[in-house]
Amino acid sequence: MEKYRTQRDAARRGVVTPEMELVAKDESRPVAEILGLVAKGEVAIPCNRHHQSIAPKGIGRALRTKINVNLGSSRDCQSHDKELAKVRSAEAMGADAIMDLSTFGDTQGFRRRLAAECRAVLGTVPIYDALVHLDKPLAEITSDEWLAAARMHCEDGMDFLTIHVGLNRATAERFKRTRDRITNIVSRGGSLMFSWMEMTGEENPYYARFDELLDICREHDVTLSLGDACRPGCIHDATDACQVEELIVLGELTRRAWERDVQVIIEGPGHMPLDQIEANMRLQQRLCHGAPFYVLGPLVTDVAPGYDHITSAIGGALAAWHGAAFLCYVTPAEHLRLPSLDDMREGIVAAKIAAHAGDLAKGLPGAGDWDQAMSQARQALDWEAMFKLALEPEKPRRYRSESPPEKADTCSMCGDMCAVRNMNRILGGEVVTARP
Amino acid sequence: MEKYRTQRDAARRGVVTPEMELVAKDESRPVAEILGLVAKGEVAIPCNRHHQSIAPKGIGRALRTKINVNLGSSRDCQSHDKELAKVRSAEAMGADAIMDLSTFGDTQGFRRRLAAECRAVLGTVPIYDALVHLDKPLAEITSDEWLAAARMHCEDGMDFLTIHVGLNRATAERFKRTRDRITNIVSRGGSLMFSWMEMTGEENPYYARFDELLDICREHDVTLSLGDACRPGCIHDATDACQVEELIVLGELTRRAWERDVQVIIEGPGHMPLDQIEANMRLQQRLCHGAPFYVLGPLVTDVAPGYDHITSAIGGALAAWHGAAFLCYVTPAEHLRLPSLDDMREGIVAAKIAAHAGDLAKGLPGAGDWDQAMSQARQALDWEAMFKLALEPEKPRRYRSESPPEKADTCSMCGDMCAVRNMNRILGGEVVTARP
Repeated sequence: MEKYRTQRDAARRGVVTPEMELVAKDESRPVAEILGLVAKGEVAIPCNRHHQSIAPKGIGRALRTKINVNLGSSRDCQSHDKELAKVRSAEAMGADAIMDLSTFGDTQGFRRRLAAECRAVLGTVPIYDALVHLDKPLAEITSDEWLAAARMHCEDGMDFLTIHVGLNRATAERFKRTRDRITNIVSRGGSLMFSWMEMTGEENPYYARFDELLDICREHDVTLSLGDACRPGCIHDATDACQVEELIVLGELTRRAWERDVQVIIEGPGHMPLDQIEANMRLQQRLCHGAPFYVLGPLVTDVAPGYDHITSAIGGALAAWHGAAFLCYVTPAEHLRLPSLDDMREGIVAAKIAAHAGDLAKGLPGAGDWDQAMSQARQALDWEAMFKLALEPEKPRRYRSESPPEKADTCSMCGDMCAVRNMNRILGGEVVTARP
Repeated sequence: MEKYRTQRDAARRGVVTPEMELVAKDESRPVAEILGLVAKGEVAIPCNRHHQSIAPKGIGRALRTKINVNLGSSRDCQSHDKELAKVRSAEAMGADAIMDLSTFGDTQGFRRRLAAECRAVLGTVPIYDALVHLDKPLAEITSDEWLAAARMHCEDGMDFLTIHVGLNRATAERFKRTRDRITNIVSRGGSLMFSWMEMTGEENPYYARFDELLDICREHDVTLSLGDACRPGCIHDATDACQVEELIVLGELTRRAWERDVQVIIEGPGHMPLDQIEANMRLQQRLCHGAPFYVLGPLVTDVAPGYDHITSAIGGALAAWHGAAFLCYVTPAEHLRLPSLDDMREGIVAAKIAAHAGDLAKGLPGAGDWDQAMSQARQALDWEAMFKLALEPEKPRRYRSESPPEKADTCSMCGDMCAVRNMNRILGGEVVTARP
């Protein structure tokens, strides 16, 4: 008989799991520290018992900031093969987790293929898939069917599930009463659940039957990613009463999940001006008892469609610095279309920049070593070393090969006025003429 | 006879200039407020008497954050016509200022053409140009020739000059004594001046003869942009003794310039981790008596060549929030090559995002109106309005036209699960089926 049911269960019993060992190695930290953080709930190691191909990752603010890549088919973009090619590319670029948001075709077949082949941590949103799978009007879906959708995803090997359980009748009432948002509810799952509740008059089934949901998650060791249905969809709506009320509910649910040994991640904003981000990170840490925070952005302005990988990298870097553990990537296609392979690549690079900038700022041990190695390569004008160290090497290599400089130890920006070269020569005692 | 010599002179006498009127209109602020800020030195309005085509801009942290675009020919990229095409494109995209960093060919002819045709505020670095213009070994350039280079640029109509005057013998000695930097001096002008001082044994001529430099600037109403030769070139070197010592010197020079009615901008970092940016902005405001801060980045990590428009947008947004008034754009080509037209466009977009995100965060009056209009267009699913409001409209238009959705009021990301559409329908009393 097994010694433990979930990673959290093991941690609380002081049992080191193979997954904790791998996370400790990945983070260069003692395994006892990882175990302690999992026991406290400050680190989650989402790893479904049925996801055999996983390379487990630890998600928590004491560790390296992780990034998630959203993929999946939709009615307007149906090919699962194309999406699988993206999955492989995302893994190669260093995505820690992949969320499959497919809403078209044989979604279960795709999920099972992911669980069989994919090393990244896998997440899904069963609410979307219930609609695809059941293929009937939203209002006719039953409470049992909503729960069954979550069970199916657990059985299919998903490591974490986004469930919009904080949008209960009380939160929905507050949302309807205040009515001062410009963009209402922009969460796709949240808007569907809100609509279902409005049409049926019933309580959110995941909230009403939360203990059953926990039992399902516990059985397969699936991590609950508590969705933020009321995340702000624009700068104007940030940090309003609905958003904060829902976060309070998520904090209550976190404790209930932990009591049943289910690991928890909290989802967060959204659109938010720079000056509200730190406060939001602190609020989440307090209200949700240190559970890892998983943010979508935050996008620090609404005005740059086509460039929201940049608006979200700005917010994500700040969020990571102040305690967000997990950044959902945002691509240039956000607000416009399903991302292409190139969009995905741009989104991953931007998210990795934000994560690493956050790690530097929060003083993560060893985070600066990478920058120091790059700076030493720059100082030595060692172009090959710079490319090897680059967060994404293809573009810098291409840029340099497209514009070869006159002198190999410079680049075409400064030519023979290169400050690095001049300083190396003058500090080395050589006479510099700048017209050599 | 004229009533005033420079904008600062006019402000101190209480004289409203036509340029102050234009800035007041541009910022939607009372002209008396602008006059007061110019008198205090907290706003600079760089506008050379010989730059007739200028659309003057106010640079100061109480105003909208401005952006600068660097252009110019180099030995490896020689065409002035190509650079002029970039100037026109940069102006069309909303560049507030353009720095001509040309280091090849008939640089004076190019400068004069800019002064005749360009509406943007114009800046240059006479140190580079002295080398091109004089075409002789660095060590043989005389103190008089360095001063003459600055005079020539003033006569050619440049609105502000970057002069690396803070790198005097004392700063250079401290730099040599500490020697704990990885990347030494990465400022191109700074490294040339350091080399010149090392080879000749003389004091920095701009420092030694600062009063003469001020007289030249005063005559043409040219703003001094006090260069930061010792700006950090990597995360490791940020906020070190050399950088701070130079800033102290720049603060002393600021007061001397103000006494002669010369407007001042202070240049700043550079590479810097997120958690040091706010402190650096406060330090500059204190040491430089509120003079506008003009930052290059800051780049919040060293590891992302090819994507430094993103690393600098993160740092620039934070800097603008905490008081930087003027952001120098950084393109994806930074550290790799001279930027192409496309690189320039990417760099401008990233800098404008950072500037606007900073304006939102610092609570600039009216800054949120743009975001609110965009959010209202999103809420109404009014695609044409969204494109018109977009910070850069070409890419979002193209994205949508490349991936037309099945239903015109959605996009291909969420299709008929569009949260905005669902919420509009359910709040409007319509029955939502999500399989319409």
